[in-house]
Amino acid sequence: MALKGVMKLINGGVTAPKGFLAGSMSCGIKKSGKSDLALLFSSTPCVAAGTFTTNKVRSGSVVLSRERLKKGFAQAVIVNSGNANCCVGKKEIKDAKEITKALSAELDIKKDLMLIASTGIIGRPLPAQKIKNGLKALVNNLSNSNGTSFAKAIMTTDTVHKEIAVEINIKGKVVRVAGAVKGAGMICPNMATMLAFFTTDAAIETKALKQAFKESVHDSFNKITIDGDMSTNDSAIIFANGQAGNSIIKNNTKDYFVFFEAVKFVTRELSRKIVLDGEGATRFIEIIVKGAKAEDDAGLVAKRIANSNLVKTMIAGGDPNWGRIAAASGSSEADINPERMDIYFGKVLVMKNGAGVNASRGLLLDIFRKKEIKIIVDLKSGKHADRIWTCDFTEEYVKINAEYET
Amino acid sequence: MALKGVMKLINGGVTAPKGFLAGSMSCGIKKSGKSDLALLFSSTPCVAAGTFTTNKVRSGSVVLSRERLKKGFAQAVIVNSGNANCCVGKKEIKDAKEITKALSAELDIKKDLMLIASTGIIGRPLPAQKIKNGLKALVNNLSNSNGTSFAKAIMTTDTVHKEIAVEINIKGKVVRVAGAVKGAGMICPNMATMLAFFTTDAAIETKALKQAFKESVHDSFNKITIDGDMSTNDSAIIFANGQAGNSIIKNNTKDYFVFFEAVKFVTRELSRKIVLDGEGATRFIEIIVKGAKAEDDAGLVAKRIANSNLVKTMIAGGDPNWGRIAAASGSSEADINPERMDIYFGKVLVMKNGAGVNASRGLLLDIFRKKEIKIIVDLKSGKHADRIWTCDFTEEYVKINAEYET
Repeated sequence: MALKGVMKLINGGVTAPKGFLAGSMSCGIKKSGKSDLALLFSSTPCVAAGTFTTNKVRSGSVVLSRERLKKGFAQAVIVNSGNANCCVGKKEIKDAKEITKALSAELDIKKDLMLIASTGIIGRPLPAQKIKNGLKALVNNLSNSNGTSFAKAIMTTDTVHKEIAVEINIKGKVVRVAGAVKGAGMICPNMATMLAFFTTDAAIETKALKQAFKESVHDSFNKITIDGDMSTNDSAIIFANGQAGNSIIKNNTKDYFVFFEAVKFVTRELSRKIVLDGEGATRFIEIIVKGAKAEDDAGLVAKRIANSNLVKTMIAGGDPNWGRIAAASGSSEADINPERMDIYFGKVLVMKNGAGVNASRGLLLDIFRKKEIKIIVDLKSGKHADRIWTCDFTEEYVKINAEYET
Repeated sequence: MALKGVMKLINGGVTAPKGFLAGSMSCGIKKSGKSDLALLFSSTPCVAAGTFTTNKVRSGSVVLSRERLKKGFAQAVIVNSGNANCCVGKKEIKDAKEITKALSAELDIKKDLMLIASTGIIGRPLPAQKIKNGLKALVNNLSNSNGTSFAKAIMTTDTVHKEIAVEINIKGKVVRVAGAVKGAGMICPNMATMLAFFTTDAAIETKALKQAFKESVHDSFNKITIDGDMSTNDSAIIFANGQAGNSIIKNNTKDYFVFFEAVKFVTRELSRKIVLDGEGATRFIEIIVKGAKAEDDAGLVAKRIANSNLVKTMIAGGDPNWGRIAAASGSSEADINPERMDIYFGKVLVMKNGAGVNASRGLLLDIFRKKEIKIIVDLKSGKHADRIWTCDFTEEYVKINAEYET
């Protein structure tokens, strides 16, 4: 995606905006000894917003952070990887409360401003004592140069860490927006997202921050899918500490839209990185459904295609077997007329009005050899469109998930 | 499943009931040279019923057979494998009509009693001339000992042919019910089913046949899933020619229920064979959801678990990671209370009231080493239950579907 107007890509991640510090350490949750505890902290209280999984089975960490974010303020979040703190019973909330309470004392901030997120295996009690034992060292590790270590410490099956930062200009003041995410499997649209943390030094009113964040998440993390499985722990949280010193951004003003574009860019790019790092993935697939009677119809068809194992294995195999796309489209609940439906691979028309057309097989094989593949379905029945990003489905995905150790 | 009362398993498939002949041949659709054309024929006209895919994108063969079955009569069905006769446009119906017309002339039966079914690659024009050239030889091959060749000729990615036959007694007369099916991928509940053909020499009224068949299909093929992908070609058809000479079976009589049990048994056993032959499958999984507020809720949870790639790869890996089952349950649209939910592997309780319990890992690993695994989810919120059969999800599935040649 091209950077719009005055937006500038800068180095670093969540600690790029002013006043944010991060730290990480290994407290012993992961057998591998890799970092499994991460802390993100703002030197001053922030306006904050979050979206969380819609799964009815959810982690105690999600329950607590969601509750605390209702007032719209936060100052820090602790993240543990390797254990989901889920399906354990009342201990989940108890652990989440105790850990955040101890850490808020250590950081000398109000306990209600302290959030928690967890990711990893479901159904194992969180080793809360190990975490509590590590808090002092974690706080001591805080630094404004530890954004990347933070992004690494939240990983589970991810193969690369994922972070980004941009700079914009609000009435002469430099404002920064940044983010770090983790996620490579158990990812499906409309579940909020995986773990994603955003920081900005913008001064912004709560309502404007909430709106910009909600729309950005809808446009990014809610439009990607890897395996159709919805997590119990997905959390996306944004912190705005106002240290850029800009005049406060109000909803729907010109400044708002400059800020909104930055948040949208950061969330989109990070959602793209998640798909590129999809478990076992070798290809990035963009599915665009247009010409739908309603946006919901476009989304239903796109989602059905994106979650079809037959479509995804076909792309893994490099085979332009568009019939599987037609079949997936027809099996969605969307209101479509198969006799009007066109399908394209990139710019090449392969099905017109529900029937195959003669497309050059050489040309199609070339398209399927590329790292990024675009599938367009034109329903020719209306003006609505939607898009989803996904990845192919390889033997490696099965291997990763069959061998994931409990 | 135990045979009920007077039901007796007998040898053979669709030609076991009196008056049914079958034939097969290779007409050149499959590059491998394997049989790709099959014919099932009753020496006298039959009362008949069928259910078909609910995919909005459907084969011309489905459209024609569905239309012809509306009157409730049929005498023969031709099946081609290797080509779905789908997403080709108007030629689909034209080919289906011409082939059935030529074949009905060859068989000397009314053309409206001639049905057609197709399975294979989507989007390639049916090589109708090759099929027409083969019709004479196909009819010459008809014999009452060719049930098994019929079952073999309808296969695509199936590794074994699937047939069964039983004998019952209706007021002193021997009545037979038999079936043959194909299907190993692109299989998902509530799409009618794959290709399935049933024969019986019972004399039965149309209404009773329809009801027995509809309920049996609902209880069998609509309760299995392999990959969550819904086919464009699924067809299940039953023929009853009355040659057993029993007094005609009427709806909801004692005789009806004896007959119904036989149809239910045959469809269930064949649906089970499909799951056992699921593409790449190494394990048969029965998912039972009980204690639901409504049957729909039980079905939604069971289906969500059965279609979860994470659950299916976990079983392929032999790992009793029940958290994935809890997560899948919570992400369904069913009305459930996670804090009441229990999960069992076989008879071993692994989660109680939403929290893990200490179960012997040795015991669980033993269960996961078996060929058949039972997962029970008790929602403890009502009296409704449902079950789904599925299989595990292996690297081999991906290999088969990545390499499936177009």
